[in-house]
Amino acid sequence: MSPSQSVADLGEHALIARLHERVPPPPPWVVLGMGDDAAVLAPERGEQLVLTTDSLVEDVHFRRALTPLDAVGYKALAVNLSDLAAMGAASRAALLSLALPGTLLVSEFDAMVDGLLTLAGVSRTPLVGGNITRSPGPLVIDVTVVGSARARRIVTRGGGRAGDELYVTGWLGASAAGLAALQSGAARPELDSDLAACVARYERPEPRLRAGLIAARSRTVTAGIDLSDGLADGVRQIATASRVGAIVEAGDVPVHPGAGAWAARTSSDPLTWALSGGEDYELLFAVPKRRTRSFLAATKHWAGLQVTRVGHLTREPGVWLRRGERLEPLGSGFVHF
Amino acid sequence: MSPSQSVADLGEHALIARLHERVPPPPPWVVLGMGDDAAVLAPERGEQLVLTTDSLVEDVHFRRALTPLDAVGYKALAVNLSDLAAMGAASRAALLSLALPGTLLVSEFDAMVDGLLTLAGVSRTPLVGGNITRSPGPLVIDVTVVGSARARRIVTRGGGRAGDELYVTGWLGASAAGLAALQSGAARPELDSDLAACVARYERPEPRLRAGLIAARSRTVTAGIDLSDGLADGVRQIATASRVGAIVEAGDVPVHPGAGAWAARTSSDPLTWALSGGEDYELLFAVPKRRTRSFLAATKHWAGLQVTRVGHLTREPGVWLRRGERLEPLGSGFVHF
Repeated sequence: MSPSQSVADLGEHALIARLHERVPPPPPWVVLGMGDDAAVLAPERGEQLVLTTDSLVEDVHFRRALTPLDAVGYKALAVNLSDLAAMGAASRAALLSLALPGTLLVSEFDAMVDGLLTLAGVSRTPLVGGNITRSPGPLVIDVTVVGSARARRIVTRGGGRAGDELYVTGWLGASAAGLAALQSGAARPELDSDLAACVARYERPEPRLRAGLIAARSRTVTAGIDLSDGLADGVRQIATASRVGAIVEAGDVPVHPGAGAWAARTSSDPLTWALSGGEDYELLFAVPKRRTRSFLAATKHWAGLQVTRVGHLTREPGVWLRRGERLEPLGSGFVHF
Repeated sequence: MSPSQSVADLGEHALIARLHERVPPPPPWVVLGMGDDAAVLAPERGEQLVLTTDSLVEDVHFRRALTPLDAVGYKALAVNLSDLAAMGAASRAALLSLALPGTLLVSEFDAMVDGLLTLAGVSRTPLVGGNITRSPGPLVIDVTVVGSARARRIVTRGGGRAGDELYVTGWLGASAAGLAALQSGAARPELDSDLAACVARYERPEPRLRAGLIAARSRTVTAGIDLSDGLADGVRQIATASRVGAIVEAGDVPVHPGAGAWAARTSSDPLTWALSGGEDYELLFAVPKRRTRSFLAATKHWAGLQVTRVGHLTREPGVWLRRGERLEPLGSGFVHF
């Protein structure tokens, strides 16, 4: 089998076998991995199951001309693990469902699978199930992840209360700036390190599993969400689910330095990228004021990941952005449809 | 919102909300259903988790002109539940990931979701997660199901031994005959009841969850698989995974009466449909001879579902079809790629 063959040349069974061969031996909690009608996992004693699914669709979420397929594979798993991170869950397993254009090269298939398996290895998320079919249109890569968490430590969107402060991990706007740089046709080797970091964030977002787990176990957060569609959307989702309002302080939003630099070069607004660009996959938490000290102490174990207070929840409904003295509507996040 | 609107008119958030509204209140084991970053399930004490994923792609697995969308929704869940049935697992929850062409009508979206939820209700498989995105090409409906089973009762493909007899549930070839009838342009109201049953099997296959569970608990089967790709493929998969050979008796294959009738009208071979047509979603089991009596006693609890001995596993490798005195290669199943 030559990698210059197309996946249609190989066929479904050979592709499944090829996928199977690339999957390393699973960890002990996997009773039965790939290759049967279904996979079997041993449960984690005393923990609940956490489940989520998300897909990447060619020409909606990525373009093959712009994003290497190993990054597509990596990202398809990353966006799902990010949802587990937001709930404070540990990852246990992943399932992959692929719809492939027949013209896709076997070498591209390999790259995509290897990208996914790289993150699967780093995050200890064994791939236990796979399904491959032909697509008469775009490449569709659908991932489901299974996690586990202790019953009373699960963080939802709906537990925030008026007065809680909003904290965000890392830097925002990086992913949107990275995408803008790629779309501008800027050559990758010529990007400075800050902007290269933005491109890396767009292509290989890092799911904040450790931060989410530590925050949940610290019992200091009342609500949490991952920023798949921008800070504005995340704040709105927490406010809506928690039946409160929110104010975000424009001056406090941690805009990624690369986003700031690329915005200056292109006369763009980096704050818009941070608020509405999406795909940063940082975490947003609501923290009661009396838990601030414990929460910040817990974040010391985040292995260098920074945390920034960006606003607070309010009794009055409505979601606002404060710029200096003025309140303006926060706007909405990135819409994939 | 008028059902004559397209899904692109509505947008992602409104569609998710619309999906959410159609989902009934979940059973007690669902700690957190749709609407957050992930769903949360309480584990079943002493049971292992069984996981599988499968997708239906427009113009590969179905055509919108031929199959009503409520049947597509139903079938997308059914094919996954059939995998759980093959393992002897009970269903616990489902997740749905949709890639929708923007021109799909909201009424079509509703029909598809309602078709899936009908089977979800009947099979007690709560829908706990959903993800919706746009597709620039075909409609893709991806489902992941979670089941549970007692540790030593799980039935795999690989436990068969030489001498075990092969038993199949129900009648075969119905789905392929139903599809052939639809493709011929035969008007549905004019189909006789046997052929109408074939169309129903093609559109709304019945996952054999009860039969699978009872067979697994009876501890009389050494291997099992669901017939998604025809009897030939199922026998080959069990033989390969069990490192044995197999002989299928052509005269013993239970060909559906409707398949026989339509084959006679169209000069087709109904045995080919049964062996290679696929999509019957019946179960195939390997049963040691000394367990035959107990196995058949257990099948009395299958609520009228019949069981037929169709062949046996052999020490010599190779998978054969016996027609009268002659052995011929069994051929392969339906290939989706």
